[in-house]
Amino acid sequence: MSMTLGELAVRFGCELRGNPEVSVTHVASLQEAGPEAVCFVANPKYRTHLATTRAAAVIVDAATAATCSVPVLISKKPYPTFARVAALLHPPAPVQPGVHPSAVVDPTAIVDPTAAVAPLCSIGAGVRIGARAVIGPGCVVQDNVEIGADTRLVARVTVCARVKVGERCIVHPGAVIGADGFGYAPDGGTWVKVAQVGAVRIGNDVEIGANTTVDRGAIDDTVLEDGVKLDNQIQIGHNVRVGAHTAMAAGVGVAGSTIIGKHCMIGGKAGINGQIEICDGVLIGGHTTVGGSIKHPGSYSGAIGMEETKRFRRNAARFRQLDTMAKQVHALVKHTGAPLVEPMRDSQDEKDKQ
Amino acid sequence: MSMTLGELAVRFGCELRGNPEVSVTHVASLQEAGPEAVCFVANPKYRTHLATTRAAAVIVDAATAATCSVPVLISKKPYPTFARVAALLHPPAPVQPGVHPSAVVDPTAIVDPTAAVAPLCSIGAGVRIGARAVIGPGCVVQDNVEIGADTRLVARVTVCARVKVGERCIVHPGAVIGADGFGYAPDGGTWVKVAQVGAVRIGNDVEIGANTTVDRGAIDDTVLEDGVKLDNQIQIGHNVRVGAHTAMAAGVGVAGSTIIGKHCMIGGKAGINGQIEICDGVLIGGHTTVGGSIKHPGSYSGAIGMEETKRFRRNAARFRQLDTMAKQVHALVKHTGAPLVEPMRDSQDEKDKQ
Amino acid sequence: MSMTLGELAVRFGCELRGNPEVSVTHVASLQEAGPEAVCFVANPKYRTHLATTRAAAVIVDAATAATCSVPVLISKKPYPTFARVAALLHPPAPVQPGVHPSAVVDPTAIVDPTAAVAPLCSIGAGVRIGARAVIGPGCVVQDNVEIGADTRLVARVTVCARVKVGERCIVHPGAVIGADGFGYAPDGGTWVKVAQVGAVRIGNDVEIGANTTVDRGAIDDTVLEDGVKLDNQIQIGHNVRVGAHTAMAAGVGVAGSTIIGKHCMIGGKAGINGQIEICDGVLIGGHTTVGGSIKHPGSYSGAIGMEETKRFRRNAARFRQLDTMAKQVHALVKHTGAPLVEPMRDSQDEKDKQ
Repeated sequence: MSMTLGELAVRFGCELRGNPEVSVTHVASLQEAGPEAVCFVANPKYRTHLATTRAAAVIVDAATAATCSVPVLISKKPYPTFARVAALLHPPAPVQPGVHPSAVVDPTAIVDPTAAVAPLCSIGAGVRIGARAVIGPGCVVQDNVEIGADTRLVARVTVCARVKVGERCIVHPGAVIGADGFGYAPDGGTWVKVAQVGAVRIGNDVEIGANTTVDRGAIDDTVLEDGVKLDNQIQIGHNVRVGAHTAMAAGVGVAGSTIIGKHCMIGGKAGINGQIEICDGVLIGGHTTVGGSIKHPGSYSGAIGMEETKRFRRNAARFRQLDTMAKQVHALVKHTGAPLVEPMRDSQDEKDKQ
Repeated sequence: MSMTLGELAVRFGCELRGNPEVSVTHVASLQEAGPEAVCFVANPKYRTHLATTRAAAVIVDAATAATCSVPVLISKKPYPTFARVAALLHPPAPVQPGVHPSAVVDPTAIVDPTAAVAPLCSIGAGVRIGARAVIGPGCVVQDNVEIGADTRLVARVTVCARVKVGERCIVHPGAVIGADGFGYAPDGGTWVKVAQVGAVRIGNDVEIGANTTVDRGAIDDTVLEDGVKLDNQIQIGHNVRVGAHTAMAAGVGVAGSTIIGKHCMIGGKAGINGQIEICDGVLIGGHTTVGGSIKHPGSYSGAIGMEETKRFRRNAARFRQLDTMAKQVHALVKHTGAPLVEPMRDSQDEKDKQ
Repeated sequence: MSMTLGELAVRFGCELRGNPEVSVTHVASLQEAGPEAVCFVANPKYRTHLATTRAAAVIVDAATAATCSVPVLISKKPYPTFARVAALLHPPAPVQPGVHPSAVVDPTAIVDPTAAVAPLCSIGAGVRIGARAVIGPGCVVQDNVEIGADTRLVARVTVCARVKVGERCIVHPGAVIGADGFGYAPDGGTWVKVAQVGAVRIGNDVEIGANTTVDRGAIDDTVLEDGVKLDNQIQIGHNVRVGAHTAMAAGVGVAGSTIIGKHCMIGGKAGINGQIEICDGVLIGGHTTVGGSIKHPGSYSGAIGMEETKRFRRNAARFRQLDTMAKQVHALVKHTGAPLVEPMRDSQDEKDKQ
């Protein structure tokens, strides 16, 4: 795809400082860019490359534009503008509508004539695949699934029975949508499986990463609302609800029946307990264990950083003495009559608050 | 599937308070239930819905029955009874025995005539598939695998060479059973792969979640005993043995050669070191790091909770001063003659205990 | 495969104490070994079995040889020697070159005549598959991918468009190489997808575990250098570079644009932040959170161990009082005039250092 800088400026409402006739064909990093590339300063530490880049133009805000001499497309929101330019210059590979002869499609499935079903897919009974949807190679779509218009299952995705996926979603390879939730009733030392009779409902504009798993509900459905973005290797337990436009980095796990609000951002490998509620607008740091509900928007963390192993081990050993140490400090205060800096509740009080 | 309340009461040994002629067809939550639904009070906080549910009957214990006016099936163990009722009303979709013509089955494989091999499966040489087993769409079963009677590989499961899977197992999409364990001999800054010549042996009634991986043994086999339940995205290293009826929540990792006892419950994302032993009857909290063996049944934890990020960072910074702080408290005790609350061993002693 | 002990001694430069005519066919553990097995003392705790093993020979170093009476192959580096012997005795199952008729191969793909494409693979346009490479059953190889000579995709692997895989690599089932990185520009409460136009470049002799995901670069490529070994369920974010011969245990996550040096060893479930640098020769303990760059080779850790839950909770509650406790200790020192053991910076100083 080729566009002139002038066309980009008009289309995305940018001010252009440069030659509107110059054609661009792709995006690149400042260092690698050639004369047909558009760039963006993704990280302030690369700003020094602005002086030397060979790019056709750089998308920047007005303040940055004032400090650099290369051609610029000035945008109030450079990053989303760059994202839209990149999407325009790099559209997904075009796909041929129709069902590949190697795909196995149940005669009761309804595939829109503008949709594509790639080689070696298995499409079950009663499935409905919407307009311009793409079912990539090796996907398994089980009975009575609905796939919305313009949604793309990239490759080797499994969608289990009765799951509904909205429009304009992207599901990456290896993702499994609608496997059974993990439910067992204990009975005399063994486990009785609890049938997982709910399904999964996925809104519009949802993206689901490679090898991510979203379990079906035990009775009611598991729900991902519109605009949710899940990175790779995330686990969403049964009956979880994830609010609109919430994004989760790779490796997050959410246990069953938890409700997560809208516009949250969850850091990689965070582990979120079951049956809790997290309100809208919460940021959670990577590797944090979220044991209980969060009722106020804000930023929450829980991952202790690393140290050199020798030093870390000394401190970790002291961690196991912490309660004793706290009691000793109390005793010292009492013994010496030293002033109390702040109240330091007894551990039992803290426990009761949990 | 439709059953009368009377039939359910007889079949599962419940006392029925209600009309035995009423037919039920499915399970539902108390709030969503209609007049053909059976319910269960999964969570005490939903008990208030008992007053208003439209369900045909609710499965409860005698104490709960005494406090509610809707029709009830009274069971000594309501949860496993509910699980059995749900399984009866919601059987897995029936499958047509036989091998789908799109499946590629080696001529030396033996597929029981009552078993089903779905579209687009690859079945290797010398494989044996037992009675009524179901190999779902897109599965790869490599050479000399044995799949027991009534076992179901839901879809897109990989079972590597020589793995043995017992009877009545369920393996969910994306699971990989018997990939090579992670074994390399270091040699002058590079790694020499150690052939993984063991296999995996899986007992009866085992369930394995979506995208879970169970590695084959280096020399001897990796073993999952009867009744083990593994949630999604669990990693079982080579030569691990998991005892009967142990259940692991999503994201647990068990490193190589570790032995886990029977009837353990491991919380989500726990990380278990290699070459250790965990005895029977151990509960491990989510996100816990298990560095060493556990010799006594009981509950073990290790995940620090979250706090507001600003506050957490202050405390995490102090964590890195813990050893110093402990020494300072000791010095204060000595200096002031304050009483010693409890012995607080020096960090070196703690280290030696590890 | 059968070899005599004499042949092994010559081939691997070992001193043989035993009958060179004895034939061996496989490796085994000391306890299970029969008269045709070769063994290795993998773990010093099994050394007691040296006295009773029925093995044809044990591969040991000179010091161990001096203490045991069974036949031995004496090597300066017993573990890599054992690995090479095991590889010789247990070669991968031979594969028939050629494309299975059930595979769907684009006519523009070039498959070397000595390579094998197994049943039910999908091979895209412009793909190149090198000499003796093996594409196992159910793999999806998208457009313009290059697979080097002698590389093996075991089964059900997905390689996305334009990814390059080197020679002699092994990729295990369920791995996804080259799915989109997780990149979105925030725009008024929603997310605009940033096209991921880079690819993945993988060197020679790389091994990638089951269900591991390696994302394609946002603009430039994600890179795994020669000899990198990744265990199962690892996540490598976009634009990460992993240095030669670095090994990662299962469940590690590396966020975008991080550079990891050569010859590092990363423990299971470690979480590594984005946009940082880790130098050559770093060891990171399991479950550690790596928040910032590491500039010096050495061993780093960050996982607090477990305790009995009751005791752990008391200490974890005190963790949330740590900053207060530290201030109280400072106040006690000031009040009593006790000697200062070591300087204990204020938390704010520590924060500024982060």
